[in-house]
Amino acid sequence: MVARPMVDTAINPDTGLPRRVVIREVGPRDGFQNEPELIPTDDKIALIEQLAATGVPRMELTSFVRADVVPQLADGPEVLARVELPAGLERSVIVPNPRGLDLALANSEHFDDVNVFLSASESHNRANVNRSVAESLAGLVPMLARIADAGLRPRASISTAFGCPYEGTVPVERVAEISEALLDAGAVDLNLADTTGMANPVTVKRLFVTLLERFGERAELTAHFHNTRGQGLANVVAALEVGVTSFDSSFGELGGCPVPPGATGNIATEDLVSLLHEMGVETGIDLDSMIAASAAVQRILGRRLTSHTLVSGPVDWH
Amino acid sequence: MVARPMVDTAINPDTGLPRRVVIREVGPRDGFQNEPELIPTDDKIALIEQLAATGVPRMELTSFVRADVVPQLADGPEVLARVELPAGLERSVIVPNPRGLDLALANSEHFDDVNVFLSASESHNRANVNRSVAESLAGLVPMLARIADAGLRPRASISTAFGCPYEGTVPVERVAEISEALLDAGAVDLNLADTTGMANPVTVKRLFVTLLERFGERAELTAHFHNTRGQGLANVVAALEVGVTSFDSSFGELGGCPVPPGATGNIATEDLVSLLHEMGVETGIDLDSMIAASAAVQRILGRRLTSHTLVSGPVDWH
Repeated sequence: MVARPMVDTAINPDTGLPRRVVIREVGPRDGFQNEPELIPTDDKIALIEQLAATGVPRMELTSFVRADVVPQLADGPEVLARVELPAGLERSVIVPNPRGLDLALANSEHFDDVNVFLSASESHNRANVNRSVAESLAGLVPMLARIADAGLRPRASISTAFGCPYEGTVPVERVAEISEALLDAGAVDLNLADTTGMANPVTVKRLFVTLLERFGERAELTAHFHNTRGQGLANVVAALEVGVTSFDSSFGELGGCPVPPGATGNIATEDLVSLLHEMGVETGIDLDSMIAASAAVQRILGRRLTSHTLVSGPVDWH
Repeated sequence: MVARPMVDTAINPDTGLPRRVVIREVGPRDGFQNEPELIPTDDKIALIEQLAATGVPRMELTSFVRADVVPQLADGPEVLARVELPAGLERSVIVPNPRGLDLALANSEHFDDVNVFLSASESHNRANVNRSVAESLAGLVPMLARIADAGLRPRASISTAFGCPYEGTVPVERVAEISEALLDAGAVDLNLADTTGMANPVTVKRLFVTLLERFGERAELTAHFHNTRGQGLANVVAALEVGVTSFDSSFGELGGCPVPPGATGNIATEDLVSLLHEMGVETGIDLDSMIAASAAVQRILGRRLTSHTLVSGPVDWH
């Protein structure tokens, strides 16, 4: 497991924002799994290596899911075995269940973190994994322990943390209860996910103020926003303003839930980096290289992606 | 000239944001003028009437420019004469020079406000109108007086107020000087325009804090953001947080500067309204009707527009 470097989370007094944040590139998992056409393994490996060369400090590489359910990631073990990555990159995978974890642990020399997940709302969790939230939590407890026992970093994602397409509002207190249960079970990172793009800057601040106050000393809290309604970067700024310093994003704005057709996915890494650098927040990522990686995946996918900076280029301040 | 209703700009203590804002729909001018294909006059009239029926309180209807330079708006006088609008709608037009103002004043029974403009940066003003900023200011002084003498509301827009593609940073003090000169010449509203999408939440707050402190009692300050780098709504929230309560936007995310190809334009009215309503900020606009208006212009233009809510629909909270 790669050591996690200390992040300088000091506030810049000129802006009231953190001086530096950590970005996790999730495109190779969240993006690739949502593409209707299979991406050739060689292309995946080249793209992941190109992403790593941008300086991004963390990347989610694949998911250990059934090949018949998610054929897009059936080559996960081969990708992990063949891809050549810099020593300092923190690599994560995602597992949906104990069987996925068995598979992951058989390949564990290739990554550092294992991410498990559940939904904050009963209806979404039921629709996604056909279990109640309590049943999912009970199942995750031994999985988190096995991840830690294997010398890997246990992470947990909470979907629909900012709203559920079936139930509407998800109470902050409910997300806090689930967060506490996951931390008590050994999770060291929590991902708060806006799965269907229902967060807004007010609800983002409300949730993170509560969670950072209660759990900020125990765990790292990551914001995982989608850009479904164009508010993704506004939500990032809201999270920054209350002290969040860890973000997920996907190059090219890939991924997320591509329903309805044309809906945008995760926030685009290059748009996030452009925003942060313009505000004086460091990421360690070279923006031009990240735009080049998105241009490369756009060529491979053969369709115009929805990232903004990919089209406009970075702000050139002369 | 339609009377401008008092806007309740009280702050909602739960969110720290204004309870209500005023949106000006600029699509019929800023959007239509940037379309490569001419939109039939009948379609324009139908779209403007559909927009007015959404409840939007202000609309920019056309620009009095040379027909050989901007053929897209050559039918401006006919549109103004034929369109049927509700009595309370505040209607504006834009004029680039004294000759445009002559034309406008010959049609002045059809609108309430006249907007003049210049750039905050020398290079952009030179590129746009081939004059220095001082020369432009000197030319605007008698125009603003003529607008007021005609019983119309004089508005002034400052382009590149948040950054210039040729010069980079535009000092806040320079924008403040130009603002003061325009107010002294009789402008009652100032539009601060992010012409090429270079604003970010930090620079938005910095400029508006200064301008509101100095001029907030004398004039209404409007934010006119583009979504070139995906930051448009983040900039709106930043402006709201420091007390801006007036915004320009364009249905369907039309307009702005469509260079390079694929670059997005003004912030989309429907995305702005969705954001504001989700945060409890009232606009008086029916979101479903606004999305329907954007769907209508999308059909007429025959290409997929870049607005998010047009694809995703509004958040349904059940």
